[in-house]
Amino acid sequence: MTLAEPTLAAADPIDWDERFSDYGARASASEIRELLKLLVQPDIISFAGGIPDPALFPRELVAAAHAKVLGDAALSREALQYSVSEGYAPLREQLAAPWRAKGVDLDIDNILITNGSQQALDLISRLFLNPGDRLLSARPTYLGALQAFNAGAPEHGDLAELITGWSKAKLAYVMPDFANPSGETLPQQERQAILAAADRAGVALVEDAAYVELAFDGETPPSLLELEARAKGSVDAGRVIYCGTFSKTVVPGLRLGWVIAPKPVIRKLVLMKQAADLHTSSLSQMALSEVLANLTPEHMNALRAAYGARCAAMLGALSRHMPAGVTWTKPKGGMFVWLDLPQGLDGAKLLERAIKEERVAFVPGAAFFATGVRRNSLRLSFSLNPPEVVEEGIARLGRLLKSAS
Amino acid sequence: MTLAEPTLAAADPIDWDERFSDYGARASASEIRELLKLLVQPDIISFAGGIPDPALFPRELVAAAHAKVLGDAALSREALQYSVSEGYAPLREQLAAPWRAKGVDLDIDNILITNGSQQALDLISRLFLNPGDRLLSARPTYLGALQAFNAGAPEHGDLAELITGWSKAKLAYVMPDFANPSGETLPQQERQAILAAADRAGVALVEDAAYVELAFDGETPPSLLELEARAKGSVDAGRVIYCGTFSKTVVPGLRLGWVIAPKPVIRKLVLMKQAADLHTSSLSQMALSEVLANLTPEHMNALRAAYGARCAAMLGALSRHMPAGVTWTKPKGGMFVWLDLPQGLDGAKLLERAIKEERVAFVPGAAFFATGVRRNSLRLSFSLNPPEVVEEGIARLGRLLKSAS
Repeated sequence: MTLAEPTLAAADPIDWDERFSDYGARASASEIRELLKLLVQPDIISFAGGIPDPALFPRELVAAAHAKVLGDAALSREALQYSVSEGYAPLREQLAAPWRAKGVDLDIDNILITNGSQQALDLISRLFLNPGDRLLSARPTYLGALQAFNAGAPEHGDLAELITGWSKAKLAYVMPDFANPSGETLPQQERQAILAAADRAGVALVEDAAYVELAFDGETPPSLLELEARAKGSVDAGRVIYCGTFSKTVVPGLRLGWVIAPKPVIRKLVLMKQAADLHTSSLSQMALSEVLANLTPEHMNALRAAYGARCAAMLGALSRHMPAGVTWTKPKGGMFVWLDLPQGLDGAKLLERAIKEERVAFVPGAAFFATGVRRNSLRLSFSLNPPEVVEEGIARLGRLLKSAS
Repeated sequence: MTLAEPTLAAADPIDWDERFSDYGARASASEIRELLKLLVQPDIISFAGGIPDPALFPRELVAAAHAKVLGDAALSREALQYSVSEGYAPLREQLAAPWRAKGVDLDIDNILITNGSQQALDLISRLFLNPGDRLLSARPTYLGALQAFNAGAPEHGDLAELITGWSKAKLAYVMPDFANPSGETLPQQERQAILAAADRAGVALVEDAAYVELAFDGETPPSLLELEARAKGSVDAGRVIYCGTFSKTVVPGLRLGWVIAPKPVIRKLVLMKQAADLHTSSLSQMALSEVLANLTPEHMNALRAAYGARCAAMLGALSRHMPAGVTWTKPKGGMFVWLDLPQGLDGAKLLERAIKEERVAFVPGAAFFATGVRRNSLRLSFSLNPPEVVEEGIARLGRLLKSAS
């Protein structure tokens, strides 16, 4: 040992950068996420983070579910032991049932439980994308999806190219309901057009349904998955890969989501999930299953009412405080409003001033574009602030935009 | 809609295989894992699965920890909300403290929490391996590591080539303590030799410490991480990437592990973790932190005593029942004994007969080799069966091997 230690100490420090893989070298910090870390200051009104309001968490249900599972000898043995990569079968059954009730033919072998829908996106990215494969998404689109897909080093294209003509894309990513970041919902006719175009182009369709349950009036057009499976007879006959999450309807901290897809896709995703982390927490899945069994319509109604009221407050405040030339979306669900600013303005530069001069924060729109960036845009979230704070924050933003226009 | 539906229904079924990525196409079912599914029959004595005994789980502690976190308004808000990708800071602090007490210089920014050590292996594989990069591992080595590394399509080499001479490998994977599947422990001198050789070859070293806490007498040589950090002054000055897990010491079902590495490596892994699943369950991390604070030395002693007694029973039974020409390792910890059989025998073929004729099961050794397969071998786990069952199972195996030799 006395001989070996000097040898070790004499070595040159390792140059890690030269050892990383192409993907490793590419992985880089999101400017937005770095920025958001700076915004946790009490006098800043932040419309930046798009996270659920913890006051709306069904904490008692979650606590009771964990107590029930962990208080039972047999259940707790299962909850604390290794489990299968596919996920907890009763939970997958609970997820399948409402689809069957809508006439969609699928079974639990069409469903994989994931660590939130982010893991679903990561596994789908790895399953489909070789470097240079063409990926279509909306402009703007969800930042977390771009991060997951960028691991595969795709070539980016606009979702619009699917509809308007021929595309040699391999994969298209769509968030049809109350999209992050636009807040917009695709009408049923556009959903049909996307499905028909995907068939023509031979493209696999990833449907991200993160916000679908947060319709303020409880109504959304049928999902791509439903439209296609009803037309073609079953999920297995289709090309939609549907990603769901409990992060918006129950809690995000448990990291639970799921994928519904044709069985050849699920079988591959299960193998990749096994290599990626064996399986999702058995306890979390069993507790969530118990929560779902006890979740009342009142819980969902309370969520929708709360976010609906905050959205209405924001839309009202925008109409009172925004200068001419600023336009915004009118979401009917979800957590986000998208603002288009006059040409020449830059959301990122405005954010610097917004924080310094007005103590209000948002996410600059540029973060949500893989290509075709529109810098004169920004995203506002209405999920966290009560109406009076929204009013004050939007008034501050209005002052800034008036002085900048 | 009436127009669109026939268009959809008329489409050809999608050929998924031709759409998968190179990695997707490569992902395939482990024969072993498929086989293990068939072994859940009450009259089979199985030494196949290497999972902890649920009777040894600290269930009350885990239940109390969840009740405490979920019963507190402030703690539960944090536990159920989104969190940082790095992991829960107090848990990382608990992990750092014992290293510092041993004189190893590191801080919580050297630590990332993962979904079990399997996710650590997957992220490390993605961070380092481009297709064709050379990866060194022991022969035999851990199947789950091979699955994770195979995602990167490496060229496989024997760990021995690191010691015996020059190697152009990028990464070497080592399980120094009570290895899965061999049960063997590297003496301190070999650890020093590996560290010195890795310095000469410029190779990054992955240390998998899954079983290190299961030393029957509580003793192991210093880890690669400790030896190197003490010699070089800090974890940051080294090349060891250490993977730990709570699956063997607390419970596997929560899926909690961690990585300790130089900060440039951790920073990249954090970015990749963010794209892979945002973060590990906040609730699980906070509850585990509480469990650790209350875990007694008696719990660890009980684990070590139980597995030690089962190992002794297995080694005794082997010496009574194995025919000449069969040799086996003599583990001082962990869960596994490795058998080398006479030339010409094939563990996989023997397993078929073992199940049919003797109702005893094991894992054929071939599964644990990326290259240089030795078919005349098998792995036995002693983690689950009481001594009298071990005696009967090994007697059955002995009969089979006598008739086959």
